[in-house]
Amino acid sequence: MKQQLTVVKVGGAIIESSEKLTSFLYEFSRIPEPKILVHGGGRDATEMCDQLGINVNMTNGRRITDEASLKVAVMMYAGWINKRISAFLQSQSCNAFGLCGSDLNSIIAQKRDPNPIDYGFVGEISHINVEVLEQLFKLNITPVFSAICHDGKGQLLNVNADTIASELSAALSEHYSVRLIYSFEKSGVLEEIEDETTIISELSFPQFNEMRASNTIYAGMLPKLTNGFNALKKGVNSVQIGRLELITNENFQRTNLTL
Amino acid sequence: MKQQLTVVKVGGAIIESSEKLTSFLYEFSRIPEPKILVHGGGRDATEMCDQLGINVNMTNGRRITDEASLKVAVMMYAGWINKRISAFLQSQSCNAFGLCGSDLNSIIAQKRDPNPIDYGFVGEISHINVEVLEQLFKLNITPVFSAICHDGKGQLLNVNADTIASELSAALSEHYSVRLIYSFEKSGVLEEIEDETTIISELSFPQFNEMRASNTIYAGMLPKLTNGFNALKKGVNSVQIGRLELITNENFQRTNLTL
Repeated sequence: MKQQLTVVKVGGAIIESSEKLTSFLYEFSRIPEPKILVHGGGRDATEMCDQLGINVNMTNGRRITDEASLKVAVMMYAGWINKRISAFLQSQSCNAFGLCGSDLNSIIAQKRDPNPIDYGFVGEISHINVEVLEQLFKLNITPVFSAICHDGKGQLLNVNADTIASELSAALSEHYSVRLIYSFEKSGVLEEIEDETTIISELSFPQFNEMRASNTIYAGMLPKLTNGFNALKKGVNSVQIGRLELITNENFQRTNLTL
Repeated sequence: MKQQLTVVKVGGAIIESSEKLTSFLYEFSRIPEPKILVHGGGRDATEMCDQLGINVNMTNGRRITDEASLKVAVMMYAGWINKRISAFLQSQSCNAFGLCGSDLNSIIAQKRDPNPIDYGFVGEISHINVEVLEQLFKLNITPVFSAICHDGKGQLLNVNADTIASELSAALSEHYSVRLIYSFEKSGVLEEIEDETTIISELSFPQFNEMRASNTIYAGMLPKLTNGFNALKKGVNSVQIGRLELITNENFQRTNLTL
């Protein structure tokens, strides 16, 4: 039987609030099995760009990561957010190790094809170093990934944090029974975005496709769901979406994805 | 016989120039024995404070690290500088792992006594986790330390990078024969600061004390020398000051410290 492993992605409103982040990390530190945390940066990077007078260029509703924006992303994600998380987890006796993809050559990405649109320093994951992660788990170390990877030639790249969580889970599922949790400020995927009682407790891939076709999925949920179903297809044992404290307490308030 | 280990501190003008940093890291990556890199941040953090409109408060010529300055230090040192170094070293097949003191609980510091002067979020090292560093060396990993530590209770602290290099070297000298190199843009400690031919090739502790008493040491050299002599007193095998490429090529252009 494969060993249990939990991968948790945290982002958005939880990261932006010190209080919510602390309470989230407290729950995370108590997960007994080997675990990985993947975090994004929320609006912190956007605010820092504003403060520094860096224009955020958008094309087709997607952000272009130029050199100045990459610097801010690395400072905020791999620096300020990652190291505060590492320090807090250590205070809870969780042996955290904050890293980005260049550290230990853990995640290699390739710059996204500049045709038809050049998104700048944005990467797509091409390789995950499973062996080095296994070495860390053997030492009882908890990796905390910021959403920064590298191309193996010295260039840092910004990579979507939902995708990192999904690809890490998929790569590790060969040796572990992986549970992937997309943790955010809602109790799960909701039928009505403002009504917490409308949780969809089980969402199948055909249902997801129907909802997507009828445009009834909130835009921010799409990357989580697409990445979640990709993970399931690649052998990840379970994918859950919701509040971490409800999921780890075996409460039923969550959305489980099924194929 | 103890295994060789090299600890290199890099700072100042080398970090501020991409070209100099690349050439330095190329040399560093070629050191064959287990090694550690410790880096400061140079003027990058000061410039970022200026851009963000953060006032740098000074008392008795020393900087006060308030919350806003700590954030900038963590972003710049543990984020932007640390991760670019990690990515470049990986491109040179050096298995770098960029960390700060909270990662793996590697370096614990205590906030400096606020009496008589409260310097803010500045720490003095209280414990180095030698065991975890030994585990990393066994895996052929090269730790790259930024000058940020933690207090074990969730608080990040800014710590002098020269001191981190000295204390790491001292702690590791129980199990390794440690060579500590303070690498900077000059060829060594110079009698005349603008004249590279006036290198003091061997500087003893009594000489250092005489020079200090007669105020003939350039202010920027004082922390390196004080920390270097402290390292020697605590059992570090050798302390060298100068350009890394000259030191690793067994050239004689350097300053060796002796007790």
